[in-house]
Amino acid sequence: MKLIIANKNYSSWSLRGWMALKAFNIPFEEIKLSLSTEAFYKELAQYTPIGKVPVLLDDDLSIWDSLAICEYINETYLDGKGWPTDKHLRARARSIVADMHSGFFGIRNEMPMNCRAKRRVELSDQAKKEVDTLDRVWTELRQHNTPNGPYLFGEFSLADAFFAPVIFRFKTYGIELSDAARDYQQTMLAHPAMKSWLEDSVIETDIVEAGEAGEPV
Amino acid sequence: MKLIIANKNYSSWSLRGWMALKAFNIPFEEIKLSLSTEAFYKELAQYTPIGKVPVLLDDDLSIWDSLAICEYINETYLDGKGWPTDKHLRARARSIVADMHSGFFGIRNEMPMNCRAKRRVELSDQAKKEVDTLDRVWTELRQHNTPNGPYLFGEFSLADAFFAPVIFRFKTYGIELSDAARDYQQTMLAHPAMKSWLEDSVIETDIVEAGEAGEPV
Repeated sequence: MKLIIANKNYSSWSLRGWMALKAFNIPFEEIKLSLSTEAFYKELAQYTPIGKVPVLLDDDLSIWDSLAICEYINETYLDGKGWPTDKHLRARARSIVADMHSGFFGIRNEMPMNCRAKRRVELSDQAKKEVDTLDRVWTELRQHNTPNGPYLFGEFSLADAFFAPVIFRFKTYGIELSDAARDYQQTMLAHPAMKSWLEDSVIETDIVEAGEAGEPV
Repeated sequence: MKLIIANKNYSSWSLRGWMALKAFNIPFEEIKLSLSTEAFYKELAQYTPIGKVPVLLDDDLSIWDSLAICEYINETYLDGKGWPTDKHLRARARSIVADMHSGFFGIRNEMPMNCRAKRRVELSDQAKKEVDTLDRVWTELRQHNTPNGPYLFGEFSLADAFFAPVIFRFKTYGIELSDAARDYQQTMLAHPAMKSWLEDSVIETDIVEAGEAGEPV
């Protein structure tokens, strides 16, 4: 199985698909293409009509988009255990993941993922509101699910994979969080797969300007 | 089971969740809130941290976001038959649905859903490119799956529910499509649930300015 991703420092969507595989110890070969290069578009055009990463190649099957990849590996490799087994919690997990998948544009536009950097930005009211929403959602979930583990739904789930980029964003841009949300952030940053991704992002040498927002500190 | 939606004429996300239930003959009570009113925000705040429609209420469970609703009813009411049963086709269905869920902003911004209207807009290059992509994807899927029915994956699936808003958009704004894609559009427009939604949208009296793009013809 192969996963096509882009620059680890910048590609938030890549990180989601990658974490979904890595954190569940599913073996795969990583193929990295540098964002916005000719090779990037040319290679991707073979596998997706949209030309975005990540793309998962499994036998003769190509699956793109991080959420479709999550559902695929949940069914094919995790026997449904990628999501919480409780029906209520599973519905909640999919709801918040879908929110992250289709929204939070303030956070996404104003704080592009740049794992290795330390930056400061002046957030819009919209972005601030989104930070508050995520903080509240994480806090609530952890209060409810802590007996079963330190992640959003106790044990690590696909929902955590989905929030991985925003965990790095909040670190890069020095976003202040409530105690519970910060504790969740620390848990995620200490995950071996997150540490490995960060280490790889540091040694990448190419700069993608769209990811270089804010003032360095 | 209850589904909270907004104005049928304008709310594309509502249509997706509604079609997913209606087209599969799953009984539910429809609760309609007018977009951007005080009642809209107040009511939704009880059920979702994001305050968007649709929201599905099933016993003590609230599920929001049209995609999370699709996955929920697929598991709970459709025994997995909401998606194609073939693993390859299911992965493809989820990939294109995820694309629609997180992208196609040219189409979404320049052609807001306005079911009952007939309008013309000057599309950006980005939107034109997106129209071409959808046309190509639909054409390819129909060529491949037509032996099993007239929808994208043969029989009606959750993927069709997901493209329902763009079917109306292309009609409203008079978008020219290839023969195969237009045939798919006609199939969808002839679906009893789509006809029922359109009839209801015509008798709604409120105007939502954000949905009134382009020039009437």
